Amino acid sequence: MPRASSATLRRRHQLVRDAAARHQLDALVVTTRSNILYLTNFTGSAAAVVVTPDKVHFITDFRYVTALDTLQKSPQACPDLELSVVDGTYDATLIRVIGSLGVGRLGFEASNLTVSRHALLAAAFSDATGTGPALIPTEQLVERIRVRKDEDEIVTLRQAAELLSEVARGVFEEISQGRTERDIALAIDNRIRRAGFERPAFDTIVASGPRAALPHATPGERRLSENDLVVLDFGGVYDSYCVDLTRTVSVGRAGERVREVYAAVLEAHDRAIRTVQPGRSRFAVDAAARDWLTTCGLGAAFGHGTGHGLGLDIHEDPRITRPAAGAPGDDAGDADQALTSGMVFTIEPGAYLPGWGGVRIEDDVLVTEHGVDVLTSVTTDLLEL
Amino acid sequence: MPRASSATLRRRHQLVRDAAARHQLDALVVTTRSNILYLTNFTGSAAAVVVTPDKVHFITDFRYVTALDTLQKSPQACPDLELSVVDGTYDATLIRVIGSLGVGRLGFEASNLTVSRHALLAAAFSDATGTGPALIPTEQLVERIRVRKDEDEIVTLRQAAELLSEVARGVFEEISQGRTERDIALAIDNRIRRAGFERPAFDTIVASGPRAALPHATPGERRLSENDLVVLDFGGVYDSYCVDLTRTVSVGRAGERVREVYAAVLEAHDRAIRTVQPGRSRFAVDAAARDWLTTCGLGAAFGHGTGHGLGLDIHEDPRITRPAAGAPGDDAGDADQALTSGMVFTIEPGAYLPGWGGVRIEDDVLVTEHGVDVLTSVTTDLLEL
Repeated sequence: MPRASSATLRRRHQLVRDAAARHQLDALVVTTRSNILYLTNFTGSAAAVVVTPDKVHFITDFRYVTALDTLQKSPQACPDLELSVVDGTYDATLIRVIGSLGVGRLGFEASNLTVSRHALLAAAFSDATGTGPALIPTEQLVERIRVRKDEDEIVTLRQAAELLSEVARGVFEEISQGRTERDIALAIDNRIRRAGFERPAFDTIVASGPRAALPHATPGERRLSENDLVVLDFGGVYDSYCVDLTRTVSVGRAGERVREVYAAVLEAHDRAIRTVQPGRSRFAVDAAARDWLTTCGLGAAFGHGTGHGLGLDIHEDPRITRPAAGAPGDDAGDADQALTSGMVFTIEPGAYLPGWGGVRIEDDVLVTEHGVDVLTSVTTDLLEL
Repeated sequence: MPRASSATLRRRHQLVRDAAARHQLDALVVTTRSNILYLTNFTGSAAAVVVTPDKVHFITDFRYVTALDTLQKSPQACPDLELSVVDGTYDATLIRVIGSLGVGRLGFEASNLTVSRHALLAAAFSDATGTGPALIPTEQLVERIRVRKDEDEIVTLRQAAELLSEVARGVFEEISQGRTERDIALAIDNRIRRAGFERPAFDTIVASGPRAALPHATPGERRLSENDLVVLDFGGVYDSYCVDLTRTVSVGRAGERVREVYAAVLEAHDRAIRTVQPGRSRFAVDAAARDWLTTCGLGAAFGHGTGHGLGLDIHEDPRITRPAAGAPGDDAGDADQALTSGMVFTIEPGAYLPGWGGVRIEDDVLVTEHGVDVLTSVTTDLLEL
């Protein structure tokens, strides 16, 4: 359950209405699940919302009516909510609700609505008497508001990051020679849940030895052995918000090459964090890590971005990357997005050497009025366990 | 890792090519993640595929290149695969690959591709010299093939259902007065993983007492108490395939009303299963359960469909529902879909009485040449624990 108060939701609605007005929209259909949650506190898996200047029309099906009712009786109730329970299909109900509003320009979320659903809406409104709304594609309208966390969100993310740090300190106790990656991943997931998270935020990564060279390895039956490097990357969802942390540890004494690569990645991590401040470009933060790794001869070994935004989604804006980098989410970022206070994102440079292994070090940071606050608090020393 | 052999993948490709040919398509862009997995055995989170008459063009980014390489050296290698590593963005790379093919009619998956991505492709090909392809929306082209499981899939689903049944028998030992829903859900998830599943297939439901009236309840801090009914709904992903099971148990002696409602739901469950055979309408299976519950005065208490297909997705076709029922996935089903051998789906009628509680009983079934095979094997007697 997210903890945004009704007053916070009301402020968010106002920001969305302001954005809609700037696009001359009479209403906005919101279909992206995390945007719906952001605007209503509703955590169910199926709903659609139409935001108008004075109402939040909310469509869900029978399964969630009782849960919504409970929400609406709580201090986290969504203001101005007008419920329509699905009758027939979601799309038929949505079309009915929209038809009843008499709006002229209706925005929709073009990065979420599929071509099929769009065609259904378009057909419904072109069939009408000519009074149906024009469908206007919008991009990232709610996401641009979400990128800057409000007070309620920062409180939650701070708590979540502190909890995850506690989990990490326990996770180090799980590392021992002979244990399988899979078994350790399971132990991490248990620690995440026992700590009070709703669930792991993504499939936990435990990648050991040469497998540490795969940035997105699935934990397998490989057993940890002496001198392995082990990348441990895990996250949790707390009150609907995601946090994310990576440490790389050595099983037993680390060799010289391990120390070199680890030190290079750690320095890249520290440089990136020192670069974070309001007004800076997100690309400058990426460059701080990347340039250092390049200097160390590890530029080609660092194939992903330096970080990603955290919030209701585990990967959201801002993307801390090179301009037009290769990861799929990168397409979504504003090219010129400058950092502003209230942004929360990861800093997670890495170096991956096929056949040898890899190192990644990740923390979660908040952009403050004057600089940066590191929300996670776990040693970055190379642990030899 | 799914276990489809290269020969099985080749057969699947042929079925897709046949379907594409029926729609006069020269190539098909596949963007739905589970469809990509079905056609290639690739389990990563980001990729795009273009199927042509003689190639499977495969686009992924740097993070997955090593994993793909390992796959391609295995007996599960994807035949005729031609790799393009993302350079710039996914969409830019996809546009380059498509542009190099010189195709005339290019199908895309309209229920997956967003309006934004479609606009990018359309812009790229309308800018061209007039030789760019026409973009043709398709619906459920790969999904219609997936609905009928092949031998490799049936082997996996049988094993998965048997494993989940073993888990269920252990889960009953976790039920005791005073324990919280959340604690039991955690124990269930651990059993799922320890049994060899990759992960739970969805957020495990433990809904007790009056909360059992919420079909999609989130496990909370409520403690089990004497005479509670507890709905336990959980599933696992095994070799990428999903199975799903629900039992409802009583904490201590069940009262008379509990016995009545339980017996009604169980009879609905049994009637639905007895109705399953090739050639039957999926609606007839739903009606068998629903009509019985209506006879018992519980028609209004059964607000969801009787079942859903299982496979690479936890909810897929066939939808065992009323015609045009309310759940969001229902929109996707073929209205007149008759059951055929090789279909695998759940049978899960329920009755939910606000303020009182609820009962749901769910098994997974396979349509055989002549009838039905129940893949899960757990007692349906009302357990008093």
